[in-house]
Amino acid sequence: MSADRLALVERHKDLIALAIDAVETRRSWSPFKDSPSTKIHGVEKPAAGKAAFEARLGARFELDQPGVMDWVGEEVSPYTQEALGITYPVSAPEALIDAASAAMPAWVKADPELRMALCAEMAVRLYERNFEMAQAVMHVAGQSYTQAFSGSGPNALDRGIEALAYAAKAMRGVAPRAAYHRDFAGEEVALDKTYTLQPRGIGFVICCASFPTWNAYPAMFASLATGNPVIVKPHPIAVLPMAIVVEACRGVLAEFGFDPNLVTLAVDTLAAPVAGRFVDDPAVQIIDFTGSPRYGGHLERTVTGKLLFTETAGVNSIVVESTANLPETARAIARATCLFSAQMCTSPQVVFVPKGGIATDDGRVTFDEVARAIVAEIDAIAATPAQASAIMGAVQGQVSLDVVQETRAAADIHGAEVLREAAPYDHPQYPNARTMTPLVLAAEPEHQALYAEERFGPVLFIVAAEDGHAAVTEATDLAKSRGAISCYLYSRDERFMDHAAELYERAGANLSINLTGAMWINFAAAYSDYHVTGLNPAGNACLTDIAFVASRFRIVQRRRPIAA
Amino acid sequence: MSADRLALVERHKDLIALAIDAVETRRSWSPFKDSPSTKIHGVEKPAAGKAAFEARLGARFELDQPGVMDWVGEEVSPYTQEALGITYPVSAPEALIDAASAAMPAWVKADPELRMALCAEMAVRLYERNFEMAQAVMHVAGQSYTQAFSGSGPNALDRGIEALAYAAKAMRGVAPRAAYHRDFAGEEVALDKTYTLQPRGIGFVICCASFPTWNAYPAMFASLATGNPVIVKPHPIAVLPMAIVVEACRGVLAEFGFDPNLVTLAVDTLAAPVAGRFVDDPAVQIIDFTGSPRYGGHLERTVTGKLLFTETAGVNSIVVESTANLPETARAIARATCLFSAQMCTSPQVVFVPKGGIATDDGRVTFDEVARAIVAEIDAIAATPAQASAIMGAVQGQVSLDVVQETRAAADIHGAEVLREAAPYDHPQYPNARTMTPLVLAAEPEHQALYAEERFGPVLFIVAAEDGHAAVTEATDLAKSRGAISCYLYSRDERFMDHAAELYERAGANLSINLTGAMWINFAAAYSDYHVTGLNPAGNACLTDIAFVASRFRIVQRRRPIAA
Repeated sequence: MSADRLALVERHKDLIALAIDAVETRRSWSPFKDSPSTKIHGVEKPAAGKAAFEARLGARFELDQPGVMDWVGEEVSPYTQEALGITYPVSAPEALIDAASAAMPAWVKADPELRMALCAEMAVRLYERNFEMAQAVMHVAGQSYTQAFSGSGPNALDRGIEALAYAAKAMRGVAPRAAYHRDFAGEEVALDKTYTLQPRGIGFVICCASFPTWNAYPAMFASLATGNPVIVKPHPIAVLPMAIVVEACRGVLAEFGFDPNLVTLAVDTLAAPVAGRFVDDPAVQIIDFTGSPRYGGHLERTVTGKLLFTETAGVNSIVVESTANLPETARAIARATCLFSAQMCTSPQVVFVPKGGIATDDGRVTFDEVARAIVAEIDAIAATPAQASAIMGAVQGQVSLDVVQETRAAADIHGAEVLREAAPYDHPQYPNARTMTPLVLAAEPEHQALYAEERFGPVLFIVAAEDGHAAVTEATDLAKSRGAISCYLYSRDERFMDHAAELYERAGANLSINLTGAMWINFAAAYSDYHVTGLNPAGNACLTDIAFVASRFRIVQRRRPIAA
Repeated sequence: MSADRLALVERHKDLIALAIDAVETRRSWSPFKDSPSTKIHGVEKPAAGKAAFEARLGARFELDQPGVMDWVGEEVSPYTQEALGITYPVSAPEALIDAASAAMPAWVKADPELRMALCAEMAVRLYERNFEMAQAVMHVAGQSYTQAFSGSGPNALDRGIEALAYAAKAMRGVAPRAAYHRDFAGEEVALDKTYTLQPRGIGFVICCASFPTWNAYPAMFASLATGNPVIVKPHPIAVLPMAIVVEACRGVLAEFGFDPNLVTLAVDTLAAPVAGRFVDDPAVQIIDFTGSPRYGGHLERTVTGKLLFTETAGVNSIVVESTANLPETARAIARATCLFSAQMCTSPQVVFVPKGGIATDDGRVTFDEVARAIVAEIDAIAATPAQASAIMGAVQGQVSLDVVQETRAAADIHGAEVLREAAPYDHPQYPNARTMTPLVLAAEPEHQALYAEERFGPVLFIVAAEDGHAAVTEATDLAKSRGAISCYLYSRDERFMDHAAELYERAGANLSINLTGAMWINFAAAYSDYHVTGLNPAGNACLTDIAFVASRFRIVQRRRPIAA
């Protein structure tokens, strides 16, 4: 290995060792800082990041990819509602596949430790560019500045490094060589055996629009580390963050003497989607999908003979059976509902509350009092523009506003009570921002058709359940039938919680119990929190376990007699 | 855990630890003896095993399974060509699925260490009954006594324990609990997190006719250890070995207080196959298939949303580019060709030899001399009934004799030269045995249609290649297009071998180089040899890596504040 490559492996050895320790202990750890505070980063970096972003506007995003046929771009900032004017190279799919295939043999031959170090280096470089990334994510997805910085930066990079930790565990678990000695019919047989890791083929990574980097990093690093080239297909309305990622990865590859076409960008448009072309190509052997249950379900029902990982969505629910402190619980629910205007895979959509009210440390409260407490906390966030903007950010697309309108109309038809009307809030920096505070409805179990399908946007249903048990039963049935990435439960009753926990387990639903306070209840910590369980329709992939990487490579063996 | 369960975990702790060490170092190891020698086992055990087998004949095989609708059995001994007369209970598929589903919750709750210990206990009990198993395998599959004892006994059980080692690694790699501490906005958050292993669902194991136990054990133990019930579907002409396995597993489960319906037998007939009914059932979430490329390919093309592992078959080839010692090489090839009358997934079908002859330490020899040497060694085995019977055993079914006849007829049509006619040999113990020594044909590359499709039976093609490079190119092309489980190469030229090894690697084909001597060249050692690579059409499963178990379970998490 050349000196610079050796130095790179050496430089990232501790990072990978610490990441392995973190996934094994599941403790809190990160090599990065996830706050954009100038106290940490100084004042120059944020300004430079913003300038770098602004320099992209209205220009071509050069990537030096093969087979460029066209330049397209249809991104519109949810903050300015103006087109970014950036165009991206559209490469012919066969050119990307051919280039990835051609780049593969040298990548296969590279030491797995070097491939992992190169991925770690990509992560570090992306962290260095994270203020630019934050601007990019804000202006394609609508995330708030702080969330774009943390959630689409360090928190996402950590998920990628977590995948590297599992890749290291899986690959290091294969002995490269063995001496085999055994007596056969009195003859001592001695064999030298070598075991070589072989990749499966091109990895195709389909990114979602609202949180493009979060799932892309683990998929990309898991495939790359195990020897597979990667073709990244961003959502056509959210290309820029992934273009920055691909640019950074290609730079690292080229700098260390590898073919940059190991990582390429497949750009398409809403009118002419291109994913199917790649999914069907025999050279593509791994597909990582994040996005709508509709297309994800299509892939789950049709892809055979390839490795397919999906994360789609579901109906996340909260059950409030009882609570020590209603205001704190209501605040936690309100914050989770408001965060990124409920455009997260962990956003709650339904709150089940016993219709007869619940017990609290301050005495019993009615269903209406619980609902009013939640609405009051949402109102408090919405009423303060600085808070509203930091928490809710902007709504990515008109489609989510349509969801709110349709739900509002359906509420009237079905007789669900409107507890809180959705309304825009005034963004303090961006007067044109597409904002919308949550619509909150009170519903009965008979309104199930209304609340039991995913409504991707700022909509919350508070449903009157028969009692706590019925609430948990319905929440877990929903998780099983519609999928759920995160479920939440509030209770003071240990026996009830034990019983409930078992039902959530059987439904294959991750559960957060009695979370309040400064941590967002829907925050998922890399290295510590598992993400999708794969046991319900919200996806088949856990991004963060050994199964996520173990099948991305294969083992080919060779044996011959040891020379006497 | 009860005292007997605790004792069981304790009893098998070292076994699992040693198995983990073996798969990590890939050294030669087994807790069992794979020779049937009375010097090891005494004289009583073989006799008792034979008696146990004979007591089964003409009787019902009672399994106490739910939903029995009928009793069927159509096994015929390849040694006597008489029906065994054993009938097996046919349970209604929904009864087996319902029973497995009902048994699952208690199995999920059992400590993974206990589940592994129970699987280890099943293996040990089956080893104790291995003389009975050897008789059963002989009289349904046609394996010789020694091979049935070793290959379908300890060698197969070792593959099962190997899967347990990987299950242990994968499951122990998941921390059951963590304390999470992090500062959020100045607030110290402390969470107690628990991570629970959850099975995917019922595992359905489809066994092949000729070597039923070898792939069944890894699949069964991998699924059971990770919490999944198992339904075993034997081939209708080879039920008895798997009925014995299911009986033994059910006995162990019941003895330790678990529902025996965690392991059941799904019996069908050639006329009314039942596999599809189980494959399609939503409760079945894992499918392990061993058998024909036709049905395996059908599963690979149609199964979605479930975990599917396949081992089918391919065209295994030998390249003789040069050799130090022609007689030894010819003997190794002849032995591999004769072993179980070429009815093994690792049996060679094609030998490529440069048409201009090859170099040996004793000077150059012609193509014809190489071919004659191989034929002579086959003749030598065939001419000695004791050797022939120990090596070739019997031909399982008429279908394999048809393969020989069809190939012989095709040779005439295509003008391939017959180097050796197939003919029965006289079995010393069983005068009625269905035996057949190998048909050997000389072919040219233009006969590819003849030799490039799998011919499951005692048929060997010796093909005149342009030269060594052309031979390797064709052998690896065959592996890529038709699949290969084992490839073999003989050469004295290190540079040639290096070049060849790379081509085999790229074709995803396991390679044995210059093997001669007492070890069968197509012997695959558990803990040391990887089996199917999953990189060519011979199957998608490596029975013996972490990927074989890692996706059989999922992780569900729960988190709540640590009480202050």
